[in-house]
This record gives sequence, structure tokens and C-alpha cells, in this order.
Amino acid sequence: MDLFEAIEKRHSYRAEFTGEKIPDSTLKKIVQAGIQAPSGKNSQSTEFIIIDKKNIISQIAEITGYKYLHSSPAMIAVLSNCQDTYFDMTFYKEDYAAAVENILLAVTALGYASLWIDGVLRRENRAEKISDLLNIPETRKLTVLLPVGIPVENRSQCNKNAFSERAWFNSYNDIEK
Amino acid sequence: MDLFEAIEKRHSYRAEFTGEKIPDSTLKKIVQAGIQAPSGKNSQSTEFIIIDKKNIISQIAEITGYKYLHSSPAMIAVLSNCQDTYFDMTFYKEDYAAAVENILLAVTALGYASLWIDGVLRRENRAEKISDLLNIPETRKLTVLLPVGIPVENRSQCNKNAFSERAWFNSYNDIEK
Repeated sequence: MDLFEAIEKRHSYRAEFTGEKIPDSTLKKIVQAGIQAPSGKNSQSTEFIIIDKKNIISQIAEITGYKYLHSSPAMIAVLSNCQDTYFDMTFYKEDYAAAVENILLAVTALGYASLWIDGVLRRENRAEKISDLLNIPETRKLTVLLPVGIPVENRSQCNKNAFSERAWFNSYNDIEK
Repeated sequence: MDLFEAIEKRHSYRAEFTGEKIPDSTLKKIVQAGIQAPSGKNSQSTEFIIIDKKNIISQIAEITGYKYLHSSPAMIAVLSNCQDTYFDMTFYKEDYAAAVENILLAVTALGYASLWIDGVLRRENRAEKISDLLNIPETRKLTVLLPVGIPVENRSQCNKNAFSERAWFNSYNDIEK
């Protein structure tokens, strides 16, 4: 799929999946897109666990409280190595977000849908509970979960403010060019 | 350009540009890719200033100390609204990183090159100095700078560790599937 078409079609899918199994080779291709994302000082601080075992997916659906995740045939857990990489700065958030965006575009281009699940993991020890299920060591932090599947429902990208409200030439909030 | 080709060809370009001017319509198309990136709770916390004035670009090149930026015909300044968006959490870093990745892919697909300039802005008041040049209000934070131009030199994506070193199925660091 053309890049710009993928960018336009990418959306947050919060509904049932058909449950159709995704080939391992396809899941690997999707995650490879994340591996090729940039990272601060090329630290490659982001790692991935592909989940395709039904019982793990069901437990994650219960922990998050998102019932529609039960129908997801696969998930990608995104992990971060939060060590400093440049003076006193960390870039692990930027790193995983760029990787997630690559993955979401790859998912879209291959005809699947996904959802960036992030904030909910940071509450009520959900990340810790899911980390236990996946044997994630204490040196890594579960930062994002991405269900992947064929969508049952037809959804689209939520509205974005117009270009003129979010971008300008040479000076903040300047007149439109 | 095909999405997966753009993901593979995207790279950090640290060298001279030809200086050839980029049409406004192309710069807008590139930034529009950033506007269409996801954001936490669709807060759209990321904004953009396209810089195509030579004197501003020269001043930014001096402030960063990256001499090759003098040859850049355009730059995109990425700004963030750092307000909380979900309980006590902020997502502005994730938001801008996803937007930057979309922009880097768009730059690549259109035959240009760029560089994610981030950490260096956080030191020695560089972000503040550049914010003054661009009339960025105190409610916004300059987070990233992206030069855009036609590369003089032929560069490619830096090496990434193999899939088996960064991704596994169902359990951290498990045997390969």
C-alpha cells in the first residue's frame, strides 16, 4: 500500500475482530516494521513480544477490561529498556512511539486493524500483571499493547483539526501561506 | 512509494543538502502526514512550524552547531502542548514521536532526507533560543527539529539488531518460532 494511503487509513479500532488467524510470517513482517524505526542514538530500546496464544490473550483482555480484545487473534506487546542514552536524557518513549507508528501503518497496509493501548496499562498494576504473563524481566517495561486482527466493523480515522490550525510558516500562528 | 519501502529507506541524514527549494505544496503534504498521526485521546498535542526563510535556518544551524544544516532548504519545527490528557498522565512525547515518524516516512517517500534532532535542543537553552526566533508561545514546547532537503550524499538506515534479538513469541526471550 502507498505510504500516504496507509497514513490516511490508519485508525484506532475499538471493536470485535473476526478472529481469523494471522500467519506467523505476517506477524513477523509487521514487527519488523517496528524494528526498523529510528531510536535515540540507535539504542534500539524497544523490543516486542508477539502473542498468539488464546489463553494469554484472554487473560490480557480481562486485565485491561476491554472485552473486544477476546476476539483478537494476536497482540504485540511493546517493551522498553528505559536506560539513559544521552547525558541525563532518556528517549525510550520517543523510540517506542516511532516503532508503534510503523507497526500501525504496517497493520493498516496489510488489511488489519489495531489500537494503541497505553495509558490504561499504567494504572492498577495492569502492566505488571501482563508482564508476569509474558515473563518480562524487571529490566524491561511493558509500554504498549497492540491487538491485531481483521476488523468486523468499518471504522475510520477520527477527525483531525485543519492544517491551518496546527501548522504555520516561519512563525507560530502566523497567517496562512 | 510503498509503505514498507519507505520504512526501509528512512534514515538519519547528517550531511549536506543540495539546497534545492521545496515547493510549499510538498512541505504541506509532508506536514499533513504528521497531522494525521495518532495522539493520546486524540488531543492533537503536536503542532508544526515550517521554516523556509534562509536567515532563520542559518540562525538555527548556528544554535545547534550542526554546520550542514546551513544547506537545508527547509525545516520543520515540532511543538508540543504538554498538558495532561488522561488522569495524571501526559502523552505529548508519544504524540510527537508518532507524528515525527509519519513525517520522516513522507520525506523519504517524496525523495528527500531528514534527521530527527531532539536531544541537542534540550541542552544549553537551544530550544528556548530557537523558540524566540519562531515566536513560539510559552504554552508550547519546541521538541524536535527536522531539516528537509535533497541529499547530496547517499546514506542508508543504520544497522538494526536481528529480529531474533528483539522479538519473540508469547514469552520474553523465548526460542525462535
